[in-house]
Amino acid sequence: MRRLRMGMIGGGPGSFIGPVHRIAAELDREIELVAGAFSSDAGRSRAAGEQYRIDPSRAYADVATLIAGEAARADGVDFVTIVSPNHHHLPAARAALAAGIPVLSDKPATATLAEAHELADVVRAAGLPYALTYTYSGYPLVREARARIAAGALGTIRKVVVEYPQGWLAGEASGKQAEWRVDPARAGEGGCIGDIGVHALQLAEFVTGLRVTELLADLAAVVPGRALDDDCTVLLRFENGARGVLLASQIEVGELNGLRIRAYGDRGGLVWKQEEPNSLTLYDLDGGCSVVRAGTGLLGADAAARTRTPGGHPEGYLEAFANLYRDFAALLRGEPAPLLPGIEDGLRGMAFIAIAVAASRDRAGWVPFGV
Amino acid sequence: MRRLRMGMIGGGPGSFIGPVHRIAAELDREIELVAGAFSSDAGRSRAAGEQYRIDPSRAYADVATLIAGEAARADGVDFVTIVSPNHHHLPAARAALAAGIPVLSDKPATATLAEAHELADVVRAAGLPYALTYTYSGYPLVREARARIAAGALGTIRKVVVEYPQGWLAGEASGKQAEWRVDPARAGEGGCIGDIGVHALQLAEFVTGLRVTELLADLAAVVPGRALDDDCTVLLRFENGARGVLLASQIEVGELNGLRIRAYGDRGGLVWKQEEPNSLTLYDLDGGCSVVRAGTGLLGADAAARTRTPGGHPEGYLEAFANLYRDFAALLRGEPAPLLPGIEDGLRGMAFIAIAVAASRDRAGWVPFGV
Amino acid sequence: MRRLRMGMIGGGPGSFIGPVHRIAAELDREIELVAGAFSSDAGRSRAAGEQYRIDPSRAYADVATLIAGEAARADGVDFVTIVSPNHHHLPAARAALAAGIPVLSDKPATATLAEAHELADVVRAAGLPYALTYTYSGYPLVREARARIAAGALGTIRKVVVEYPQGWLAGEASGKQAEWRVDPARAGEGGCIGDIGVHALQLAEFVTGLRVTELLADLAAVVPGRALDDDCTVLLRFENGARGVLLASQIEVGELNGLRIRAYGDRGGLVWKQEEPNSLTLYDLDGGCSVVRAGTGLLGADAAARTRTPGGHPEGYLEAFANLYRDFAALLRGEPAPLLPGIEDGLRGMAFIAIAVAASRDRAGWVPFGV
Amino acid sequence: MRRLRMGMIGGGPGSFIGPVHRIAAELDREIELVAGAFSSDAGRSRAAGEQYRIDPSRAYADVATLIAGEAARADGVDFVTIVSPNHHHLPAARAALAAGIPVLSDKPATATLAEAHELADVVRAAGLPYALTYTYSGYPLVREARARIAAGALGTIRKVVVEYPQGWLAGEASGKQAEWRVDPARAGEGGCIGDIGVHALQLAEFVTGLRVTELLADLAAVVPGRALDDDCTVLLRFENGARGVLLASQIEVGELNGLRIRAYGDRGGLVWKQEEPNSLTLYDLDGGCSVVRAGTGLLGADAAARTRTPGGHPEGYLEAFANLYRDFAALLRGEPAPLLPGIEDGLRGMAFIAIAVAASRDRAGWVPFGV
Repeated sequence: MRRLRMGMIGGGPGSFIGPVHRIAAELDREIELVAGAFSSDAGRSRAAGEQYRIDPSRAYADVATLIAGEAARADGVDFVTIVSPNHHHLPAARAALAAGIPVLSDKPATATLAEAHELADVVRAAGLPYALTYTYSGYPLVREARARIAAGALGTIRKVVVEYPQGWLAGEASGKQAEWRVDPARAGEGGCIGDIGVHALQLAEFVTGLRVTELLADLAAVVPGRALDDDCTVLLRFENGARGVLLASQIEVGELNGLRIRAYGDRGGLVWKQEEPNSLTLYDLDGGCSVVRAGTGLLGADAAARTRTPGGHPEGYLEAFANLYRDFAALLRGEPAPLLPGIEDGLRGMAFIAIAVAASRDRAGWVPFGV
Repeated sequence: MRRLRMGMIGGGPGSFIGPVHRIAAELDREIELVAGAFSSDAGRSRAAGEQYRIDPSRAYADVATLIAGEAARADGVDFVTIVSPNHHHLPAARAALAAGIPVLSDKPATATLAEAHELADVVRAAGLPYALTYTYSGYPLVREARARIAAGALGTIRKVVVEYPQGWLAGEASGKQAEWRVDPARAGEGGCIGDIGVHALQLAEFVTGLRVTELLADLAAVVPGRALDDDCTVLLRFENGARGVLLASQIEVGELNGLRIRAYGDRGGLVWKQEEPNSLTLYDLDGGCSVVRAGTGLLGADAAARTRTPGGHPEGYLEAFANLYRDFAALLRGEPAPLLPGIEDGLRGMAFIAIAVAASRDRAGWVPFGV
Repeated sequence: MRRLRMGMIGGGPGSFIGPVHRIAAELDREIELVAGAFSSDAGRSRAAGEQYRIDPSRAYADVATLIAGEAARADGVDFVTIVSPNHHHLPAARAALAAGIPVLSDKPATATLAEAHELADVVRAAGLPYALTYTYSGYPLVREARARIAAGALGTIRKVVVEYPQGWLAGEASGKQAEWRVDPARAGEGGCIGDIGVHALQLAEFVTGLRVTELLADLAAVVPGRALDDDCTVLLRFENGARGVLLASQIEVGELNGLRIRAYGDRGGLVWKQEEPNSLTLYDLDGGCSVVRAGTGLLGADAAARTRTPGGHPEGYLEAFANLYRDFAALLRGEPAPLLPGIEDGLRGMAFIAIAVAASRDRAGWVPFGV
Repeated sequence: MRRLRMGMIGGGPGSFIGPVHRIAAELDREIELVAGAFSSDAGRSRAAGEQYRIDPSRAYADVATLIAGEAARADGVDFVTIVSPNHHHLPAARAALAAGIPVLSDKPATATLAEAHELADVVRAAGLPYALTYTYSGYPLVREARARIAAGALGTIRKVVVEYPQGWLAGEASGKQAEWRVDPARAGEGGCIGDIGVHALQLAEFVTGLRVTELLADLAAVVPGRALDDDCTVLLRFENGARGVLLASQIEVGELNGLRIRAYGDRGGLVWKQEEPNSLTLYDLDGGCSVVRAGTGLLGADAAARTRTPGGHPEGYLEAFANLYRDFAALLRGEPAPLLPGIEDGLRGMAFIAIAVAASRDRAGWVPFGV
């Protein structure tokens, strides 16, 4: 069976997430990077193509050229992955889908909620695979947490605490990664809420299988002179009445990428932490505490299928990311991939940014949340 | 030097906190339990006196008799400790202070804010030592955290997250400990917020040296049929503008007594966890992470003086509690004990309960906080 | 019921272990320190008496005077506790037992094996309670580990690894605590092996319920100029054929008091660590991992009875120590205390030192071990 | 720059390590799997080729055919990787090197020490790149540990403890992975010592930069009926006189892949654990403890260059493995890769197996170790 051919949009020199997507896409050898419009600067796109070791003729100067060039080849790309800053997501996805090319996109879906609605219309009209790399839902133990909650291990969910502490923007934002994230023109109206808050929301909904229906947001730009929020507190209500707290911050000095979730029902509780991703802690009402470890026989089918090494051989971020590409490859082959985030998740993420930013600005208290 | 003589009010059969106070008081051999009104039932008070192995004639049937009986002795008590449920705190403290007897009281200070104001007047008029056992401020590494922040190790504080997860009231509240805590007649108007939320507030203010000036509260009684809150989210603003989040819950199944605090400034961060109390983690802006361990030479004077064992010999809750008694003994000897919580902390705690309960009930959004 | 009256031998100014014994003895209010021969220097003994806040007339200048003085009182001591350096243990215990006074002694039992045999004869002849404070067997979770292994939770034990890393003697030995421990005249022929190696051996035998029958020892004085061993590796065989490894060191820089044990059978495994004493990790053959936490309902009767606080309120070294005093008090009341270490454990400890030191010196390979 | 072309020997259906090598080799896109003799069964080799998605004509039935077939192509392999059981290593490596093809081999180098010497001669004569995938030396924090020790951070090394606990062979050895490992005909004369003990030795020498010169070995087959050792204790002496302990086991129920190393000098100590690979703990003589975390600016150049994600994005086993392939690719390009294990490490590993097995069998006590 041949490998699927991937084109990349964005991911040029200095990109962190471009190489991550490349590694993740190719990890299982189902997909191969063959082309890209890595930068809007032709020279930089070529340089990236060399770094990625692709055929130089397939390192394009822009998205339109990429699409045209690949369409003209018998071995053209099977899909594109979009890894550029947020404001490029909509035009890139629209162009690809218009040309009949499926799209995998980094999150968030777009730069604004309006764009996300537009993109949703495009995706629905196109009828082509479209998915979003909410990376953390690719971790095997996150899948396990979801499966166990779905099977009733915690009883009825009552409380969810999802935290995403980082500290890397506690000082001045310098460097390519930082600069666009604090610039409204490129990041959109959300700073921290859009960069990592949406991951936390998606994780909370993914793990619990419950939708948030109300929120109360308190966002702030803590670092002097910053235009976008860098510290977010959002209270949540889920559709079943469960209470939630979502904390995300980029100014908590010393925190690296501390995403974690705790969920409690009327029969049990669980804890998962991204920085120690290969185990899941479960509690019961009698004081019992058990630790489910990756690579042991205690994982359910979904988590087990997404683990590549035996127990005690740590897997991490790249492998979790690769699990989303594996799901997307299944989708392209016509198989189901029900847990792969799609445009609906994208819409929810963008709505979350828009509603949280507005509610916080207006000190609006509790407001409805939904798409 | 003779030991100080302590009388206990409350702490009868079945009490958890009575024996804890007794152990803590006597741990350093500066104080001795000699008398008590352990229960409002004379027989039960006598039984407790036997358990505590005190002179049977000094196990009194009520507070008034205790005070009269001890006043009549040459070797009468030097102070009383109040460990009964909240609604007994005010009358017991008033009676003792009126008789010229210093008071150490379990927190919260009283059952209601009005009572706390009344008690504050009594304390000020009496001019006698009065202190509150906010236990967690007795941990050596909490003292260390405070000292380091005061010395500027974190720079200007920007963010504080204080969490106090418990799960023991996730089911029906049964047993002596649980029952009074969910009964407004005995616990006052606050459930979880009064039982553990005030600890979290006090810890946050103690460690940072900053006062909370505004809050937004979202409290709920999650367990069906419960009259008082059992799950609390409170957003905080500190006097210097720092942002805070206070989470307290008694329904997070599996959590035991997970009090923890994280504080972040513009130059560093720190983390302390009550369940692993003998270390303190510090972060700096350059990615550095260091762990200060109890019993090593890296502790400041205050923390070092409150550690009884060498490094690696764990100390815990009882030893932290004993550090408050040590401070109180110093106070009785006329020495300063500036970090020992007093009636001002008591007032703040009661105001916190009252304001948080009202603000949550009224969905009032941000409200001013102060005494 | 009155408290038992304790006299202390040793524990004068600068002693670490004297105050620890005092706290541990009194923690449960079953025992009271009333007298002592705290130092062989009369003035220093008096000074210690003041620090301990005992009646000055009962701070004696030597053991003989203590025994005579207390015998002359109606409220004389019920037992003595011996906390002086090792070479004082035998004469002090002999004198007390000869006077009909039960003895609790810090470990090791004596300074040499010959002395231990002599003491064993004395103890047997006296027919009085004699016990040794092998502290670590007082931890509730150590009791739980023992109980679970005894109940067959691990199946047949095959392998035990017990480690006791410390680093405090990695440099020059200075200060009262260090100096006598590296001096053969006061510590006996074992350095690290006698100070902490015996703890490790006792813990291994205590937890597994199995006796060591053979050993291979490799001891060294690593720090230049040191007369006694400071780093020990001992291979063990247990009576059932199980294999063991015992590591003890005082030169592992950064290690504080890292005693820990891992035991594995043909059906399961367990891990306990002294520096995180309030939990016990259990493994099964299917990859399952569960954590038994102090203060939960999952503890067996023995461990539960030795826990003073609810789950999540850490207990530590002093509380573990107090559990041995509680057992000893039971013994004095005529109740059974089958898990309290006695003279047989003392003999084993001394034999361990003697045999390990000789076997290592002679590069003897595997040698039989027993008393 | 084109990718290097890799052929694989071994790694057929059911192989764990084959796919691991494939992922590791391709992770950085410097290498591409293009051919293989995956199994000695032609049909199974073809099936593996399909799974790996390579050109069916390049899935060969045996090593000789692979070499001949690839030699005949303009785009033939640049090197082969050998991932078959131990007894295949020598003939496969010899054949490849004889044909001028560089070799990367899974460890251990061969099945016996005699074979290793033969291979060493072949390698030296060939003058071609040959390397061994001692995976754990590829972890960035292992590189960091080595660099810090080399820079004198710990002073003179005095003590090393390296442990490699596993539990997966505690029961009957069933399944492809287990069966060959307990079969002398396929695994060689060492069981646990050859499978994981050699990793521990290599890690200890790699991190400290010191060679072991003497050892005392105690190996056993604990599981009834097992022909090869499954539990190993080996005492070590390093060239500078430092003491070492090496523990490796496959019968410690519950342990997954717990390789860890602790090293102590006269100025400091360090700890690294494979199951939590992204941090390194450092101690100093003053009680200080710091944690170096992957992805922060505190890593030295070598470690930093081998990290693909920012701090807090966990990397693991596959990424460590890929670092060895990256080094091998550098070697093929003619660049230095001084830390990549080669035939000398292979010889040491085989000598370690042979000497430890013999010394243990003969109860020989301390014996010299070297190649």
